[in-house]
Amino acid sequence: MTDRFSQAPIMAVEQTKNVPKTAQEAIWQVVMANRILGNEGILDALGHVSLRNPENANTFFQTRSISPFEATRDDILEIDLDGNVVTKTTLKPYGERIIHGAILKARPEMNAVFHGHFAAVIPFSVTNTPIRPITHVGSFLYQGVPIYDDYEPGGGMLIRTKQEGERIAKHLGLHRVHLLRGHGCDIVAENLPRLVAAAVYLRDNATIQWQIILSGKDAKYLSSEEAKAAMETGLFGASPIDRMWGYWAARVKRNMPDMR
Amino acid sequence: MTDRFSQAPIMAVEQTKNVPKTAQEAIWQVVMANRILGNEGILDALGHVSLRNPENANTFFQTRSISPFEATRDDILEIDLDGNVVTKTTLKPYGERIIHGAILKARPEMNAVFHGHFAAVIPFSVTNTPIRPITHVGSFLYQGVPIYDDYEPGGGMLIRTKQEGERIAKHLGLHRVHLLRGHGCDIVAENLPRLVAAAVYLRDNATIQWQIILSGKDAKYLSSEEAKAAMETGLFGASPIDRMWGYWAARVKRNMPDMR
Amino acid sequence: MTDRFSQAPIMAVEQTKNVPKTAQEAIWQVVMANRILGNEGILDALGHVSLRNPENANTFFQTRSISPFEATRDDILEIDLDGNVVTKTTLKPYGERIIHGAILKARPEMNAVFHGHFAAVIPFSVTNTPIRPITHVGSFLYQGVPIYDDYEPGGGMLIRTKQEGERIAKHLGLHRVHLLRGHGCDIVAENLPRLVAAAVYLRDNATIQWQIILSGKDAKYLSSEEAKAAMETGLFGASPIDRMWGYWAARVKRNMPDMR
Amino acid sequence: MTDRFSQAPIMAVEQTKNVPKTAQEAIWQVVMANRILGNEGILDALGHVSLRNPENANTFFQTRSISPFEATRDDILEIDLDGNVVTKTTLKPYGERIIHGAILKARPEMNAVFHGHFAAVIPFSVTNTPIRPITHVGSFLYQGVPIYDDYEPGGGMLIRTKQEGERIAKHLGLHRVHLLRGHGCDIVAENLPRLVAAAVYLRDNATIQWQIILSGKDAKYLSSEEAKAAMETGLFGASPIDRMWGYWAARVKRNMPDMR
Repeated sequence: MTDRFSQAPIMAVEQTKNVPKTAQEAIWQVVMANRILGNEGILDALGHVSLRNPENANTFFQTRSISPFEATRDDILEIDLDGNVVTKTTLKPYGERIIHGAILKARPEMNAVFHGHFAAVIPFSVTNTPIRPITHVGSFLYQGVPIYDDYEPGGGMLIRTKQEGERIAKHLGLHRVHLLRGHGCDIVAENLPRLVAAAVYLRDNATIQWQIILSGKDAKYLSSEEAKAAMETGLFGASPIDRMWGYWAARVKRNMPDMR
Repeated sequence: MTDRFSQAPIMAVEQTKNVPKTAQEAIWQVVMANRILGNEGILDALGHVSLRNPENANTFFQTRSISPFEATRDDILEIDLDGNVVTKTTLKPYGERIIHGAILKARPEMNAVFHGHFAAVIPFSVTNTPIRPITHVGSFLYQGVPIYDDYEPGGGMLIRTKQEGERIAKHLGLHRVHLLRGHGCDIVAENLPRLVAAAVYLRDNATIQWQIILSGKDAKYLSSEEAKAAMETGLFGASPIDRMWGYWAARVKRNMPDMR
Repeated sequence: MTDRFSQAPIMAVEQTKNVPKTAQEAIWQVVMANRILGNEGILDALGHVSLRNPENANTFFQTRSISPFEATRDDILEIDLDGNVVTKTTLKPYGERIIHGAILKARPEMNAVFHGHFAAVIPFSVTNTPIRPITHVGSFLYQGVPIYDDYEPGGGMLIRTKQEGERIAKHLGLHRVHLLRGHGCDIVAENLPRLVAAAVYLRDNATIQWQIILSGKDAKYLSSEEAKAAMETGLFGASPIDRMWGYWAARVKRNMPDMR
Repeated sequence: MTDRFSQAPIMAVEQTKNVPKTAQEAIWQVVMANRILGNEGILDALGHVSLRNPENANTFFQTRSISPFEATRDDILEIDLDGNVVTKTTLKPYGERIIHGAILKARPEMNAVFHGHFAAVIPFSVTNTPIRPITHVGSFLYQGVPIYDDYEPGGGMLIRTKQEGERIAKHLGLHRVHLLRGHGCDIVAENLPRLVAAAVYLRDNATIQWQIILSGKDAKYLSSEEAKAAMETGLFGASPIDRMWGYWAARVKRNMPDMR
């Protein structure tokens, strides 16, 4: 299988109009991404997303320590890549914000980070089973999904020190996704719409793949060539990403009156 | 199994009152079909349906490139069977509209086409497992569900060229449903209510059948005779189809205030 | 296993205050049962319930041919035990109403009948796997769940003739539940609240039991003694049945404004 | 496996600000816990929670015999640890309230008890399969989850006598959770937010663990050291518990207008 999942640098995907130009636009997009992830059941009380500040590559935006479901503009903090809260506030940040800072520092070509715990990825993480692209919308997984298991002793499996943040970023390397054993996953992307799409389709791909694993049947996964082409022309193309973001935002607006 | 799933032409099912008589009626039915499929979770941001124009057999109606969940009358485009947008508009059509044109061209007795990616069919598509009718509402599957795996190299597994559209239509042949490996399925029907019913019950049949496959138990599938009779007298009879469409529309009205 | 599931007559469970005293009360209870079954996802567009007329033991109440989700007082028909519509109306009854008449005729001690197709029972019906009580709320299944597979040739697996209605009633015998191969199940009960509870907990019991079957593990099912006691003192006791009906009705009221 | 799940006393977790100081605060928290558990699908018509009276360690608060989904302040009864209703009322208490009294009597360091029947735990209870922590939010399960199977003969598997209440409390011992064979589970915690979190994450852990069991794959569970640290620094820390409770309460407020 290693021949299919080479460690070559992941191709750069052209940035779309979905990248906010100002801090204010970025903050609003972070609010919407939180609401989408809460509304779609990708995040519950736990887990978080971040977006690099378009006005300062050394800081990012993220909600304070509340559930994504409840995020508003007033809950967004500006945080530097070492995890220091830049916003003058007494609001409490997430304990694991260091994950976001460390990955954004290590991946200057990327701007958005997801950390979450949805159930579909856990069986893969504890059984050392590689996640592989099983459909065209899982194509972004084609370079493999490594599994992190190098937790700080006594840290309760949470990533809260600068050292462990750096280990996490190093382990993720040039991948878009890695799993954390018995914990969840981290995802990195060029922008928030792609990040949200990657979280949704990682869940869907893992769910379907596990059903196939349970059957014991041999399956035809996407080849690297198929996956690369599917990613460039399909999933992460500007048009489908706009359609997806529009769809998820429309569902937020239907379900959450304060977002209309 | 081939003896049970012969390739004889699929019987013509009498057309019901559900076929709109005018372009305006057809457009409204396309909007409702989109909303139903979004509301029932059969389509998400991706996937699409179409209906032949009752005033011009050489064109069909379909939404522009948005999620079915959001469709309104203003989003419906008229498109010819080669995929050219006939409506004078700058609105963007779906990249894969050629699937609809090619199938409607090859199947003059049919009027409605579905293309989608719901999870239940994927395991069958990648493990070469035949979908077979396991209940009376799965009876329309009795002539078999072939699996397409002849993608354009470099096309990202999307169907966007006239050539591949023709291959898709040829592969579907006289079937009502085929799967696309690692991608989803296409369905064709006489009218939109039957098409929506086929999508819903394909999902349900696949879901149940996979549970049986996981158990490793032998199952008694519908015989061809049972399936034919179930289809003629049951699932696709005028009365159940009206009841189903009424049900799905009632749920759309409950959940989507703008459709009341 | 036959030693555990003897064919002795099922005990008579004391009738509760939940039996309506008048036709008008019965009609309203039928409306509510329809809404509950639609709201809980036990019935979709298809399937139906009935309740014997408390003012005439030879007729029963049932909605016309619409989805249970949409039922109102104006949709309730009075039908005799041979399936003749007594109500002076042009409204269309269900094709399968003969199931209800035949079972109510054969079971004078019972007053309510359910016919539905929820997915959880299908795998048992096509693999000849006995459903057995796995929890206290599945206790009513303790005398076994036989599987009917004696369909009228050419009838499309639907039960629409007097003859097949009688075969169905005979096959059900003194059981509370039987399955129809590749189709669904019939349930009979003393009153509508018990009938609805039996439908919900049949689904739950089947769902859990299938998970155990998939694991290949040996399981400890309820013994006949446990099941009998659980049924008398627990599930079908007046207090839990009132609580369940109150719960399901409260959910209907929350979700369906016209029922408030 | 016994080496991993020693029977040493479970560590005392520091009490948080989540413990109400007055009876009135406690009553309101019991209402909210009921609504949360109903809204999250952890409890349906059956099952119940309780909280010790902060003004009298020998009584607890619990709703009368209604579904948690419907609980209001007016439904809360004060009950002593032997199950006698202290509130002057004709409202009917739950038959199984003795579970709550017996556990609160045996565990003076604890203040909240849950009894419920969600599907995810049943397969473990009937196949004698130990539930083990598979993620950091399942860490509170690290000392093992024993399975009770010592029902009163003829009691219908319900816990309604003082004697059986005491057996239940003794069987639970110093654990946080035990299962009841073919019935459900009991959970005990320092306060209601932790209790609700334990119920939600027991469900999630059991759901994921069963998927792994179905696969037949070896899995890496949390070590005792990991689990202890995850529990102290993570799941049951003040900050995540506040975030979880805020999240679940926000969802109640969105879905239940009378709770706004």
